[in-house]
Formats: sequence, structure tokens, C-alpha cells
Amino acid sequence: MAGKTIIQNVLASRYASSGIIQYWSEEGKIILEREFWIAVMKAQRELGLDIPSEAIEAYEKVRNQVDLARIRSREEKLRHDVKARIEEFCELAGYEHIHKGLTSRDLTDNIEQLQIFRSLQLIEVKYAACLYQLAQQAAANKDILLTGRTHNVPAQLTTWGKRLAMFGQDMLIAFQNFSAILAKYPLRGIKGAVGTQLDQLTLFEGDKRKVRRLEEKIAAFLGFQQLLFAVGQVYPRSLDFEVIAALFQLSAGISSFARTIRLMAGQELVSEGFKQGQIGSSSMPHKMNSRSCERINGLQVVLKGLVEMAMGLSGEQWNEGDVSCSVVRRVAIPDALFAIDGIMETFLTILQEMGIFPAMITNDLNRNFPFLATTTILMEAIKHGAGREEAHAAIKEHSIAVLQEMRQQGKTENELFKRLAADERIPYSLEEMNALLNEHEKFIGNAVMQTEQFVSTVSELVKRFPQALKIKPEPLL
Amino acid sequence: MAGKTIIQNVLASRYASSGIIQYWSEEGKIILEREFWIAVMKAQRELGLDIPSEAIEAYEKVRNQVDLARIRSREEKLRHDVKARIEEFCELAGYEHIHKGLTSRDLTDNIEQLQIFRSLQLIEVKYAACLYQLAQQAAANKDILLTGRTHNVPAQLTTWGKRLAMFGQDMLIAFQNFSAILAKYPLRGIKGAVGTQLDQLTLFEGDKRKVRRLEEKIAAFLGFQQLLFAVGQVYPRSLDFEVIAALFQLSAGISSFARTIRLMAGQELVSEGFKQGQIGSSSMPHKMNSRSCERINGLQVVLKGLVEMAMGLSGEQWNEGDVSCSVVRRVAIPDALFAIDGIMETFLTILQEMGIFPAMITNDLNRNFPFLATTTILMEAIKHGAGREEAHAAIKEHSIAVLQEMRQQGKTENELFKRLAADERIPYSLEEMNALLNEHEKFIGNAVMQTEQFVSTVSELVKRFPQALKIKPEPLL
Amino acid sequence: MAGKTIIQNVLASRYASSGIIQYWSEEGKIILEREFWIAVMKAQRELGLDIPSEAIEAYEKVRNQVDLARIRSREEKLRHDVKARIEEFCELAGYEHIHKGLTSRDLTDNIEQLQIFRSLQLIEVKYAACLYQLAQQAAANKDILLTGRTHNVPAQLTTWGKRLAMFGQDMLIAFQNFSAILAKYPLRGIKGAVGTQLDQLTLFEGDKRKVRRLEEKIAAFLGFQQLLFAVGQVYPRSLDFEVIAALFQLSAGISSFARTIRLMAGQELVSEGFKQGQIGSSSMPHKMNSRSCERINGLQVVLKGLVEMAMGLSGEQWNEGDVSCSVVRRVAIPDALFAIDGIMETFLTILQEMGIFPAMITNDLNRNFPFLATTTILMEAIKHGAGREEAHAAIKEHSIAVLQEMRQQGKTENELFKRLAADERIPYSLEEMNALLNEHEKFIGNAVMQTEQFVSTVSELVKRFPQALKIKPEPLL
Amino acid sequence: MAGKTIIQNVLASRYASSGIIQYWSEEGKIILEREFWIAVMKAQRELGLDIPSEAIEAYEKVRNQVDLARIRSREEKLRHDVKARIEEFCELAGYEHIHKGLTSRDLTDNIEQLQIFRSLQLIEVKYAACLYQLAQQAAANKDILLTGRTHNVPAQLTTWGKRLAMFGQDMLIAFQNFSAILAKYPLRGIKGAVGTQLDQLTLFEGDKRKVRRLEEKIAAFLGFQQLLFAVGQVYPRSLDFEVIAALFQLSAGISSFARTIRLMAGQELVSEGFKQGQIGSSSMPHKMNSRSCERINGLQVVLKGLVEMAMGLSGEQWNEGDVSCSVVRRVAIPDALFAIDGIMETFLTILQEMGIFPAMITNDLNRNFPFLATTTILMEAIKHGAGREEAHAAIKEHSIAVLQEMRQQGKTENELFKRLAADERIPYSLEEMNALLNEHEKFIGNAVMQTEQFVSTVSELVKRFPQALKIKPEPLL
Repeated sequence: MAGKTIIQNVLASRYASSGIIQYWSEEGKIILEREFWIAVMKAQRELGLDIPSEAIEAYEKVRNQVDLARIRSREEKLRHDVKARIEEFCELAGYEHIHKGLTSRDLTDNIEQLQIFRSLQLIEVKYAACLYQLAQQAAANKDILLTGRTHNVPAQLTTWGKRLAMFGQDMLIAFQNFSAILAKYPLRGIKGAVGTQLDQLTLFEGDKRKVRRLEEKIAAFLGFQQLLFAVGQVYPRSLDFEVIAALFQLSAGISSFARTIRLMAGQELVSEGFKQGQIGSSSMPHKMNSRSCERINGLQVVLKGLVEMAMGLSGEQWNEGDVSCSVVRRVAIPDALFAIDGIMETFLTILQEMGIFPAMITNDLNRNFPFLATTTILMEAIKHGAGREEAHAAIKEHSIAVLQEMRQQGKTENELFKRLAADERIPYSLEEMNALLNEHEKFIGNAVMQTEQFVSTVSELVKRFPQALKIKPEPLL
Repeated sequence: MAGKTIIQNVLASRYASSGIIQYWSEEGKIILEREFWIAVMKAQRELGLDIPSEAIEAYEKVRNQVDLARIRSREEKLRHDVKARIEEFCELAGYEHIHKGLTSRDLTDNIEQLQIFRSLQLIEVKYAACLYQLAQQAAANKDILLTGRTHNVPAQLTTWGKRLAMFGQDMLIAFQNFSAILAKYPLRGIKGAVGTQLDQLTLFEGDKRKVRRLEEKIAAFLGFQQLLFAVGQVYPRSLDFEVIAALFQLSAGISSFARTIRLMAGQELVSEGFKQGQIGSSSMPHKMNSRSCERINGLQVVLKGLVEMAMGLSGEQWNEGDVSCSVVRRVAIPDALFAIDGIMETFLTILQEMGIFPAMITNDLNRNFPFLATTTILMEAIKHGAGREEAHAAIKEHSIAVLQEMRQQGKTENELFKRLAADERIPYSLEEMNALLNEHEKFIGNAVMQTEQFVSTVSELVKRFPQALKIKPEPLL
Repeated sequence: MAGKTIIQNVLASRYASSGIIQYWSEEGKIILEREFWIAVMKAQRELGLDIPSEAIEAYEKVRNQVDLARIRSREEKLRHDVKARIEEFCELAGYEHIHKGLTSRDLTDNIEQLQIFRSLQLIEVKYAACLYQLAQQAAANKDILLTGRTHNVPAQLTTWGKRLAMFGQDMLIAFQNFSAILAKYPLRGIKGAVGTQLDQLTLFEGDKRKVRRLEEKIAAFLGFQQLLFAVGQVYPRSLDFEVIAALFQLSAGISSFARTIRLMAGQELVSEGFKQGQIGSSSMPHKMNSRSCERINGLQVVLKGLVEMAMGLSGEQWNEGDVSCSVVRRVAIPDALFAIDGIMETFLTILQEMGIFPAMITNDLNRNFPFLATTTILMEAIKHGAGREEAHAAIKEHSIAVLQEMRQQGKTENELFKRLAADERIPYSLEEMNALLNEHEKFIGNAVMQTEQFVSTVSELVKRFPQALKIKPEPLL
Repeated sequence: MAGKTIIQNVLASRYASSGIIQYWSEEGKIILEREFWIAVMKAQRELGLDIPSEAIEAYEKVRNQVDLARIRSREEKLRHDVKARIEEFCELAGYEHIHKGLTSRDLTDNIEQLQIFRSLQLIEVKYAACLYQLAQQAAANKDILLTGRTHNVPAQLTTWGKRLAMFGQDMLIAFQNFSAILAKYPLRGIKGAVGTQLDQLTLFEGDKRKVRRLEEKIAAFLGFQQLLFAVGQVYPRSLDFEVIAALFQLSAGISSFARTIRLMAGQELVSEGFKQGQIGSSSMPHKMNSRSCERINGLQVVLKGLVEMAMGLSGEQWNEGDVSCSVVRRVAIPDALFAIDGIMETFLTILQEMGIFPAMITNDLNRNFPFLATTTILMEAIKHGAGREEAHAAIKEHSIAVLQEMRQQGKTENELFKRLAADERIPYSLEEMNALLNEHEKFIGNAVMQTEQFVSTVSELVKRFPQALKIKPEPLL
């Protein structure tokens, strides 16, 4: 590799946070490997292998002393990467007790699982933080009336808080699934070259019970709740798909949120960032680009490609396995973790900096509300004595006329209420019509209660993740 | 649509079983729709709407009377599909109480969820049957020695039962995930045009508690454990991704199994089908093609494409929603269900008909075993007094010579044991070496115990699905 | 298959036109198969096989007489589908000369290629029609000023015609690629069971030259320009990927168009359909949903999934081939053709029915133009003697103030020009500023000329496809 | 970015060659950017802008002097990356003439296209080298008889050279497509912020002809044959899909080759690497893993994911464009180029080091040939006077008996010829049967001629790429 120009992983360098990157750096991986070796030694010792506790302590003490240059020079000498790292760790500790009865896959597969597992734990908390921040925004805006849109055109009223809660609902489904997957994420364990545990059995002189206990202990030390029991050379790669698919699902609600912000910004209803005095650039103060939302949507596309790679690993095992999965996993696993982390970092930043333009939201409402209120006006007119057919005809007639004025002639004021009030077929006054807008609940239904349910659901959820309350995004590049 | 040539859905017509197709036929969908309307009426009645119980009974009695021609002729008259089906059902029952306060999406989204839910329930049981049949095979073959392979070349010994259990492990992971998803699969419920439940609130005169109870009752009638509470026009489409991704994961273990059978058939170790007197076609009796395994691998590729479509639905919501997802869901959801069903049908057939060629497996073992046993022979030679370096050199020397004879000269017998026994550097007799093969456990490690653990895990699991024991595949086309 | 409920292919039944479906119906496929058999006979006859020309004429005469029921009953009797179709065709013709020296793959692969080839020819013409109709719209609207948007917010002026031409540019790139692929689409030819042409060589008594000529003749009869020469059992499946990827690319420009129409409809600038008196539904005249555009975007997602399936076929060949590709190709190939056909049908319909709301476009322009003109005003002010720094400060100051009024207070009129004209730092009059809007070219640059270049490029292109001028979409379902 | 741990792009660091990496390093990109600026200046000068030729020469002289540290320190000061690079280049040259009338996208889009274009040119030559090396192998092995397999079981004879040519056929199709795409790869050109060329028009005082000539000159300087004429802010991203899909297609034939080598290695017919004295590792000399082939198959899965990302860019443009594509392109474009480069590097290495085990191929042939020859024996027996029905029955009877002996009892010798010769129903002697194997052409058909056609096609093709003959892969990591 010497002399080759370094190309950085762009997801790590531009989008992901330093928190998640640590597990995937050369140094971070070595530390996790040492954590694993220590867990194995502890378990082996408890099951009777002759490993002194001082040795284990010595290893633990130097666990975080990683000198990459020295390891590399050993590797050049030994021409074997694992041996180089063993030698280094042993020399640092002053003992030779690690890596007993382990094959190469016992090391690589378990370490990679540890990298994944620790990353997922970090993601779980950060996603809880995302939900928490979103719920704060939803709560604060639960009463802000908004023109709800389907097919991108006005449909019925809703509230801004409810719209946020709606994206939160998507996120909650994904989080429930993700958490279930993380809780049961199983460790491959020490299974040897084709999965039959031959080497550990030899080490423990054929004592199958001990070999099983060994694995259980290791899993417990590392925090896994479940162990696989009948693998081949590797754990089933469909497990990687399960994880990456769950990461993709986490992105869905955030991505719909981002897409909707981009739409709303186009109507000047909202802006993703109010940092620079609520204006865009100096030369174009009117131009407030939703670049962060676009970034989220872009990162989601990246995730799709990584799910695709993970699918290419699933159901592709030949016999007890091979390494055709190797390059795919080197790319897809860290990149998927970086991408979702980048999405969450960006989302948290937006939640801190976004804001609405209430006057614009009101303008939009005024423009559209009369049309959306016609069902109610029809009912009220009938209550006030109008004939259904006549009233219906009047409403349709005036609606089309008003549309004509607005869309064909460009009139900005919606005069439907005025016209209806002036039509004797509609025995319902302009004052009454104008008052409708204040009777929210006639038009937004359960929007507020639904928002509150979202907020309380998140409050409950966040109790499991107290650290989530304090999470702040790193500055975006 | 009249006059247009009918192109059949090929996944339904050639691969899926009639069991799953029923929920996706025009008739089957109408029956589910009526089931839904009845559930809504019951709930509305229990919450005080004026719907007589005789009416509900009348609807229930005619639920399965579906006359497609008559419905179509109504539709032509009314030019509205939902109205046509409402009219038909009401006329059959002699009442007019269905569809109160429902919008179009209240119907379509919930019915589609019902189709999905019922299909998933059917798949869950059939997958349990797959695991059960596989476990039977694994149990029966747990002791059959087999050359384990990594990188498609001999690595260490394992057993045929363990290899099957290994694919079973993959399936168990997927099943655990799938079952969790099914158990919590949430119903959208009656939410109206933009999700605010405006129409049901109007129906229940603003009583929010009742509107919530209504949905809970409907969900309970239909068998759902969970309800969404803050959706827009539609439920979050990432839920479709969650389901389809889980279906894909179900295919992984089966697909690796199929791929490995194709490999083993190429070596004449196994055949996927022993039906016609253990021969291929009449003119080519030697040619036993693994067409069913190829079919499984093909169907898995189809599933990948459908996961991809489902990803295209996730995170794509604009505001409260639209129908850009419509065509995607019409294709991807049934097709994914048909594809996994076709995979399971094919897998069950193979499990019934497959068989091994024990003599060929033994030949393969004899060819490779001496190489795989060299580590043990080295250890034994040292125990018998050999010098490590000398013994190692002797083994390497003879291994290469034997390889030379076999690969370069085409000798079929592996004479490594003979050569080693004749070399005085190896104080270990030919009889002792030949006897090694009988000392399984020295070479297969925990393979048998792992297989047993798979079998017992499946036994436990199958208790939840007693119907699974009786499932038989339909004849393959 | 008897008794199994028929599930229709939804892409065929709801979205594709009857034109393309014909090649994929049971009957249509049989006719193409007969076309192929006839081409083979003609070539064999010309190369000396004893096939009388009356026989060929007799076959040609009955080519289109397809009685599916009779073929099916033969198949039940013979239990062999190909034999049944051979027997039927021979009995109809009164001769027995077809299918000489052909293996099963010689038939299936070539027929499927013929289905693909004919479908692609049809698509090429229809795509030319799409370009033609789009160019008509672009030409008619080349001068309509429009607020160009990047990041979904106003950026610079453009014209409506240029925006359409921009999507056309995307389509032209795709069409160029597609046409090149179609022009060189190669036929597998008669290659036998593993590709060595053993059977045709036997038939022609080892005359290799004749076997090659045979294929060349067949290709020529069927219209192919290129022949593969070194295949296995099948042609390389990456060729299917090449085709499906090209179909997907055809969808890109149309899809961006559709997405942009959906955006513009949300601002009431444009509507995809003006059929019903320029209003939405009767009860909601204001609600003009862009359902057809949504359909296009949905169909494009379907295409993505089909590309994914096609990728699963590429690079997956084992030795001389197998049928693990079979189910994938049965799904992905026709579905991709149906999907792109559905996209084009929908696009053509929109192009016929769409329209703009000029007054709304003007309103949008009036709102944004003053901000977009500030660079020009700065330049002009300097020309009129203003100091650069002072003028720049004034513009920024007033821009922010106006933004404040509009976004924070909801003022609908943009008073930037008024404010600037009133500021003595800007020696440029209100009349001059208001006049700017008439000096298009200062703001739209080359937009018109680019549009014209698009129009003339399409005119040139369409000369190769005179039928394209007459194509009309079938009514959408 | 300061202080953040660097994570390397693993495709670049482990798999791609230094040749392709150069265009994607920070330094390499800066050099291309300067190449572009110089091309623009030259064109501007030729069209009358006041840029002295000495200035251009001065820029050209320092083009390759890239001091990243100094650029970075400028960037920190200016807080603008493009300005920093402009300032640095100008200071090095001692002039200020670059970047006239260019917007940010004019720079980024064109530079990225230049990176892509140069990379594709490099790939074209290397792929020609792959075809050339493969053709060498095919030529050398065109007569080596091989058991052709379909469904992974013996089907008919072929030759090893023909099998290689078969993968070459796949590669030729892909290459033809790739070369066509590269030849017409169009440059976006200088189009400004929304594509209307406003800034260049201002620079050239409204002279449209000059603005068009400017672009034509730039394209010519950089080597592009085609120019886009009606883009928005960016060129249509479907063009990125077109490129990445073509790269994926390049991988198909190589991937099928690799998969087949893995299969053949499992039967010990071939090895991908004969470097270490034709043995595996020292401790397991028998174990020759096809790791490089597995790597190729893995890299192909990565490419699939990147195609998927590129699909996510196509048809997603909103109005005149935005940057939601940015992160996707940063990942997918270089990664796809690195992945295909890694595939070719690995393939070239295998072609250098691979070898066959002729004795094993003969064993395989001996085992299967008698079954494959039965059609011929039947024909010959009839010629020698046998009755068709009787002979057929005899062949079937003995075939099944021999299969029984071999598969059920494990006999390794195929005694079908012996048995048939001894059966009086078959008047055809053992000598005659054994002689069949020498009459290749009766069994391999056109295999040799097809191989020769492949070889001559490649010879012709390679003439366009004389450098291809000298390409050697870099050592694999």
C-alpha cells in the first residue's frame, strides 16, 4: 500500500460524526480486537485454562496503547497481519496468552460483529435523540394551522405539529424494528474453520459443555444477548442485510421530512436554517437553499445502494463459505453506518435551526381555506334552511368563478366567502364564514391529539436513553 | 380493460401456491373488503351508531357471495368502483349500513394491509413447515461424514446433517425477525383524507375517545396487535419495505441451501430429486439437473428487485402523501409474497425428494481425508516420538508428491497414508491412520451436537404452529 | 395450472398499451415462434436442405391461425409443450419440415430475443413520438418567461420552453444510447445445447461454412444486424441488463419532467390535465391532482427494481449455463417493456392535455424578479454613476427589508424596485427597472436559442421515424 | 475536517490501481481543474477576449505544481475553496486570467466530467488488455477437450478454449457498448447557474455565436466529441447512470469467468494461481483457494450497489436542479471506477497465473464421455445394422446399470463402452467406441472455429489500442 495516494472515504470525512468513525479506524478496530481477546481469555480462564489473572490485567492495562507504525513494521517483517498484532499486544503486556484456539475467522467475524454492535448502540441513542428533538418541535407547533396537501395540492387542514408527528410516526415504526434487531443481535462465537469448533474442542480436550460455556461467557462479556450455534466458516451474511435494511428504514421518516421541507421552502413557508439573520447568502439574501435536506435525501440514496450490496451477500453461501463477501462487507457495512449517522447529524442540525414563516403559512391558508371549507358551508347552509341541490350548485358555481379569477387572472385574494355570502341561495353570513377558521377542530380533527400522542410516546421511549437528551450534532461540513 | 389481451402474472401462475393467491384475486380482495366493512360496522355499533345487529348478520351471511360479472356491470353504470361494490354488497344483504365515514384511503390502505397481513400469517406457518422438514433431514443425516469446504475446496470434515443445520441457522435468524415484524404489524386505521380523522370525528360528533376506541375495536376484530396513530393520507410506505425486506431475508438460507445443492450435484454427491428411479431423463439418464434449486435462486433474484422497488417507496412522501406509490405497491407487494411462497413450495418439494449418493460422498472423503488429517498425524507422530521438524517436513514432502500424482498424473487413489506409514520419520502405522476416519469426533468437532441443537430449536418453535406439520407443497409446474 | 385463479399482470392490464402486449401474449409468442421456424426453413432450404418451397408457403399461410385451446389439448396429450406446438403448426400446414436440428434453447432463446427486438422497435418509434410532442410544446412556449429554480427556490429567469427542452435533452441522451443498442442488438442464433452448434453441423454434414451462413440468413430474415458467435447454452444475460438499463434510462428525462410538473402544480403554475373545463373533481374543483405524473414516477421506481433483477442475471453464469435465470427473465423482461410503455403512454397523454396558468406564472415572476434583477441593477446603477460599495449596500439593505415584509409580514407585493428607485444611492428610475422585465435577453440568456436547437434536433431525428408523427396514446385507465 | 480520523476509501486502497486513483486524488483533481481553466482561457482568447498568450503559457508551465498545504491555508483564510485554488494558480503563474464568466457549477460539473472521461479512457485500454490476454489463453487452449456442463452437470463436449471464448463473447458485447458510450460522452459545457449561459453571454456582449463556439473549442481541447446544449444547473444525472451501468456490464463476463473458475477449482480441474510451485499454503498444500476469483465476484456485487445509487440520481431532477445528487455522486462515481479497475487488475493477474490440470480434465472426460456419446453410438449401431428400438433399449439399460455402479457403489471407472460392446444388440466394437474420443469434431462441433473467431475479433480490436499489449497488473494486496 506504501506510496499509493490516499483517497479518503467521503462518507466518513464529510458526513459521519467522529463518534461512529472511531470504531472503524485502524486504531479503533485494534482496540476492539483487544477487547475481544481479553473477553476470550477471561472466559478461558474461568473454564480452567491456565491463564493467570495478572496476565489478563496486564493486557487490559495496555489495551488502548496503539502504535500503528510499530504494528506495521512488525507486519512487514512477519508478512502476516494478525501475527503482527498478536506479537505487539503480547509484548506490550509482557505475556503470551491471547488468541488460543482461534482461527482467523474466529477473530475477523467476531471483531467485525463487535464493530457493528458498538456502532448500532451508538446509533440507537442518537436516533432516540432525533425523535426527542422532533417531538419538541411537534409539541411547540401542534396548534399551528397548516394547509394539508395530498398530491402536492391543498386537501384538508392539518397542523404543522401534526405534520412533524406524521414523520415521527414513520420513525417510530423504524425505531421499534431497529431496537428489536439490536436487542437480539447474535454473536457468531468461536466456531473454527468450518464451524464445528474443532480447535476449541481440542483446547478443552473434547469437553463440549465447556466449549459452549466459553462462548456464552464471551458473549456476555461483550454484551450480546444471543449466540449462533450452527454456522459455517462465517455467520450467515443475511444478518448483515438485516442490519443494513434496518438502517435504511431508519432513514425513511427523516427523508420524507427532508423532502417535505424542500417543498415547503419552495413556497417560502419554512426554512431549514435561520442562522444568518434569516437570510440566504449576502449577494442573494432571498435564496435560502435547503441544502441540508437535499443532503439527507442524497444520503438515503446511498443507503439504498448499500442495501443492494447487502442483498448480494444473502443466500450466496457456497458450502461452508468463502470470502467473496469480503470486499462487499468492507464497503457496505461501514458506509451504511456512516450514511445513517450523517443523516442523523444533519437532521439534528436542521431541527435546531429550522423555522417557519407564520405570515406565509397564513397567506397560504387564506388562499385555500375557502375551498376546503365548502363541505362545511354546505352543511351549515342546509342547517340554515338552504336547499341541498341549490346550495351545492351555488358553491360549485362560485368556486369555479373564484378559481378562474385566481388562476386565470392572477387575483391573489380568494373571494369565495364574499361571493357565497352575497348569494341568496346560501343563507350563511360572511362573518360566520370568516369565523370558521377560528373553529379549528371542525377542520383539523384529531391533529392536536395525535401530535400529543406522538410526544408522549417519545417521552416514554426516551426514558430508556437518558443520554439522548444531551446529544448535539457536530458542525456540518 | 375490455378487449385487452390478458397477460398473466407469471409468479402467481407458475410459482406461487393457490393458498396465497386467493388473497390477491379480485374475488379474494372483495371478501377481505367485506370483512373490513363488517368489522367497522360492529365497532361503530358498539360505540353507539344506529346499526342493527340483524343488518350486520345479514352482511356476514352474504360475505362470500361474490359475483364479479354483476359488480363489473354496476361499475360500468356508476363509473365508480367503490360505489359499485358498496351497492352490490348492500343489495345482497338488504341493508345500507356499510362504509360510514370512510374515505377512499380508509378503504384501500386498510384492505391492502389486510391482504398483506393474512398472507404473512400464511407464510409464517409455511416457513415453520420448511424449518420442520429441514430439521427432519438434518436429524436423519447428522452422522453422515462430509468433506467440509471453504472457497469450494476441502477444508475440514463436517457432517451432512450439520451442513443442513447451517442453512437452518440462517433461516432461524430470518424467521425470528419475520415473526417479530408480523407480531407487531400495525394497522393504519380510519384516519381520513389527510390523517386527521375528520370524517369519523364528524360521525361521532367530535367524541375523540370514541374515534380512538373505534379503531382499537376494528384492529382487534381483524387480529392486529398495533395501531398507527399519526399518519397522513397513507401509512408510511417504509412499512412495506420492512415487510418485503423480511420476506427477502426468509429466502437467504434457502437460497444458500439451493446453491450448495447445485454445487454438490455437480460432484454427484447429492440430487435434488429422486423421483424417476433415480435417473435423469430417458435419453440422458446421467443428467440430473438441479432445476428446482435453480428456480429458488432465480426467485431470490426477483425478490431483490422487489426490495429495490420497496426502497423506492420509503422516504418519498410529499406532505400528507400521494399515489406515486400506487403502481409500485401493486407490483411489489403481491409479487414479493408470490415469490417467497414459490421459494417455499419449491424448497418443500426438494426436501421431500432429495437424496444423497453415500458411495460418492465416501469417495470424496477418501480422496481428501488424508490431507485434512495431516495436522492430527503430525500430533500423533510427535506423541509416538517423532521430531516435530522432521515429521513436518516428511508430511509436506509426501503431500506434495501425492498431489502431484493425483492432479498432474490423474491418479485417483490418495496414497498419502501409505507413503507416510512407509516413511521412518513418521512413527505411526497405516492401520492407525486408516482408523482415524472412524474417530469422527476428532475431526467433526461439535457438528452432531450443533445439528441436534438445531433440531430441538425447531421442535420447540414448531409447537407454536401445529398446522405446519401437515403442510405439503403443491405439485411444481 | 387448471383451476388456479388467474392473477393478471398489473403492468400489462393497467399501464401498458395493447401494442406492446401483443408480443407477450400466448398467441403473440406463438406467431413469433412460427416466424422464426419459417426463417430457419428458408435459410435451410437456401443452403440445400430438402424443404420444398410449397411447404414454406403453406406454413406462411397459416402462420397467424392460432387456436390456443387446440394447442393446449395437444400438450396435455403429448406432455411436451414444444412438441404440441410443432404438431399443431405442421398439421395446419400439411407438412413436416420445421424445427430441424434445433435444440430447446435454440428455440426459446431466439424467440425471446425476437419478442424483445420487436418490442424495442415499437418503443423506439413511440419514444420518437414523445420527443416530437415535447418539442411541439417547447416550441410553442419558448418565450414564456419563468422563474428558474435551483434548490427549489428562485435562481435566475428561464423560459417554460427551455425548461421543457431541458428534460428533452435528458431524453435525447437516452434515446441516442437506446438506438445504438437496438441497432446492434445481436441474435444468439442456432448454437445447440452447449453452444458448439453440434446438431446443425450434423444436419449439414460437418459443413461449417454452411452453418455460419445459415445463421446469417436467419438473422437477416428476422432483421438483426449482428450475430453472436461464441455463446454457451444461452446468450450472455448481461445483454438483458444492457436492454433493461437502456429502458430505464429512457424513463429518466420523463420522470424529471413529471416530478417538476408535480412541483409546479403545487404552485398552481401548471396542470397536467385540462380536460374537464380546467377544474378538478365536481366536489373539489380546486383540487387538480397530478396523478398521471405520479404514475410516471411510480413506474420509474418499478423499472429500478427490474434493472436490479437484470443485474442479478449478469455475471452469474455457471459453465455453459443453466436456468436459474428463467424466472427472473420471465418477470423482468416483459415487465420492463410494459413499464416504459406505460410511462410513454402517460407522458403522451399529459403532453396532449397539460396547460399553464399564465397569470400565476406572472405573479410568481413579479414576486421574485426584483431579487433576481439586483445584479443587473447594480451594474446599471454603476453605469449611471453610483459608487459600487454604496449601491451594493443599498441593494442588500432593501432586499432584506422587502424579504422581511414579504416573509415575516406576509405582504404579497414585492416593493424592492420602489424602494431602490426611492433611494438616492441608486440612480436608476422605477420606470427603467420595470422595463427590465421586457428586456428578456438580459435575463434568459440563450434559453430561446437552446429551445430552438432542441426543436430542430428533434425534427431531424423524427425524419427517421415518420410513423412517430401519428402516434396517439391509448386512453389511460 | 481537522483532527478527524482518516478512514481510507477501501476500494482505492486495496483494489484499484494507482493509475486510476490519480484522477481522484485531491492533487489529481486540481491538475484536471487547471487543465480545464487553461482550455477555457485558450478558447476565450481565440474568440477575442483579452488574454495574452504568455499568460496561458505561464499557467501551463505551473499546471502540475500542486502544493496542497498552501492551498489549504489559503482556504482557511478565504473560507472559500474555489477562490483559494484560483488565487494559488494565479500566483504561481503570475497572471489573473482564469475562471472568467464561470459559475460554480461550470467548474464542478465540467471537472467531474473530465475526471470521469479520463478514467473511462484508461479503463477502455485496460479492458482491451483483458480481452487480449483472454484471447491468448483461449488460443492456446482451443483444442483442450472439456466436459461442457449445463445445470452444473455434464451435457456435451466443448473445449477449454471455447469456454474462455464464451466469457470473451460476453466481454465483447459489453466492450462494444462501453466504447460507444465513451466515444459520444458529452460535455456539459459553460452553461451558468440555470443553464441559460447568462454569464458567458454577458462576457461576450450577447454574441450567441461566440458563446457556442467557446464551448465547442473547450470540448475539442479536452477531447470530447459531443456537447450538451439544453441543460439546467447540471447535466442530466442519467448520464452518470449510463456510465456506471456500462461499467457494471463490463464486469459481467469476467464475473461469470471467475464463478466458473471457482466451480472448476472445486473439481481440481483448474487453479487460478500456480505461483508457489502449484501448491496452496505450506501447511495445507492441497488447499488452493480461488480467492482472486472470489474477489472479482465480490467487486461485482459492489458495482451492483453503485448502479443502484446511480439509478437514484436519474429522473430525480427538480426544476433546474439541486445538490441532492452531490453525496451520491461523490460515492458512486469514483467507487464504480475503482471497482471495475480492481476487477480488471485481478482478472489480468489470474490470466497470468492460472493453469489447468490436464490429467484431471481427462479423468472427468473419461467418467462422463461414454454417457455423452450414446447418441452417436446409437446412430453408429443402426448404421452397423442394429434395430433402433433394441439398440435404444440396450443403451438405456446399460447406462442405468453403469450409473448405479458409479453413483451407488462408488465405482470410479465408467464401463458403459465395455458393457455395450459386449451386448449383441449393439454391433459396434469397443475399439470403435474408444476411438470416438479422438474424433473430436464429432463431439465439439464448431468449438475450435468459434474460439478462433473470438481470437481474431480481439486481434482486430486491439489494433485500436496498441498500449493494451503492454499492460501488466499491479501486485494484488
